[in-house]
Amino acid sequence: MRETFHGELDQIGRTLVEMSEAVGVAMSDATSALLDADLSLAEKVISEDAAVDRLRDDIEARAFDLLARQQPVAVDLRTVVTSLKAVADLERMGDLALHIAKVARMRYPASAVPDDVRGTIREMGAVALSIVDKTRQVLEGQDISLAEQLEREDDAMDALHRRLFAHLLSGEWTHGMEPAIDITLIGRYYERYADHAVSVARQVIFLVTGEPAPMSTAINNGATETALGV
Amino acid sequence: MRETFHGELDQIGRTLVEMSEAVGVAMSDATSALLDADLSLAEKVISEDAAVDRLRDDIEARAFDLLARQQPVAVDLRTVVTSLKAVADLERMGDLALHIAKVARMRYPASAVPDDVRGTIREMGAVALSIVDKTRQVLEGQDISLAEQLEREDDAMDALHRRLFAHLLSGEWTHGMEPAIDITLIGRYYERYADHAVSVARQVIFLVTGEPAPMSTAINNGATETALGV
Repeated sequence: MRETFHGELDQIGRTLVEMSEAVGVAMSDATSALLDADLSLAEKVISEDAAVDRLRDDIEARAFDLLARQQPVAVDLRTVVTSLKAVADLERMGDLALHIAKVARMRYPASAVPDDVRGTIREMGAVALSIVDKTRQVLEGQDISLAEQLEREDDAMDALHRRLFAHLLSGEWTHGMEPAIDITLIGRYYERYADHAVSVARQVIFLVTGEPAPMSTAINNGATETALGV
Repeated sequence: MRETFHGELDQIGRTLVEMSEAVGVAMSDATSALLDADLSLAEKVISEDAAVDRLRDDIEARAFDLLARQQPVAVDLRTVVTSLKAVADLERMGDLALHIAKVARMRYPASAVPDDVRGTIREMGAVALSIVDKTRQVLEGQDISLAEQLEREDDAMDALHRRLFAHLLSGEWTHGMEPAIDITLIGRYYERYADHAVSVARQVIFLVTGEPAPMSTAINNGATETALGV
């Protein structure tokens, strides 16, 4: 019975890894769709979000079934509850990639990203992918040594977000209101994506160590205060 | 034992109601702070968010304890799992009110809201409060007849959100970039707050009826597509 239990728990863990890969691909494609005004890539992200939702449904059903049939306690119970939290974060990350793809689609055949912020958006995309890749590694091997790197990369994302706002407010912005609104929201989507990825990793690390992950900075849960206080 | 169980489950339910009241007060205060440039009210929202987080911690600990000690199955298990989901939404609603309060604080002694969008923001605040009040009623009595009203009010929030963007893009916007960014983000905070409140109500309704709540419109999970596609 216990062996079955751990086999089923491993299956949930593998599906979480799969989900982190899927939302990584979604973000990679969404960023390319946005920067290259690639409509078919945007459509791909939009249509594939249903697959992320199915992985979520699958994990939730398995976790519920495990709780009902095996009635785990202690660390086993904590693992199931952590999986339920992680799955909600991962599903939301899929949504955020989807939102970026929808902006790309809405502005097609133009690009939603003016030339002077392309570099910053490209970097935000790269940091998002680096973060979600570490989250996957944490989920896979529960390698908690990645915790500090993750916090550093989360700080890097916040710095890029501030740079984006600084440019919007610099007086050098010549693109008018619609691209400004797009960039404001896009910036927030990247930042929130990173927050959720870091949150998943923190939860797994907490599960393994029993200690909250080190936070190199105060918790940043997406407040605009620093973003706008430039 | 079962009686204890249901007593403890009721206690979780009461704490969820308390949490919905707390995030309602937070949103009411945040909206007043924003519209009236009321610094002390903004500070109150910011400092009281810790109390919302404590309610979250309390519910999570109780739910975990119930799962470990009582090992519920069937509808009892579904109720505990639904509570864990609801608590995450309610906590996030507190954060969104907090973000609005922080914008108010950042722009003090000025108001972040130019006169020509005050009416729309005031309405968004009123709809947010009406929605969270219905969510509280659903949590309290599991009154599922409120479901349709909730969906209608969620549609009203989306319409207000579109009106806000329409004004930003109308060419009549004379306030420059910083207030435009503030209003873009504030609009999104109200919309997301409503989404989370409706999500809590839907989960409770699903728990009671075993059927998804009626969705008068396609699920709106905060995509900007409609908001920007004005």
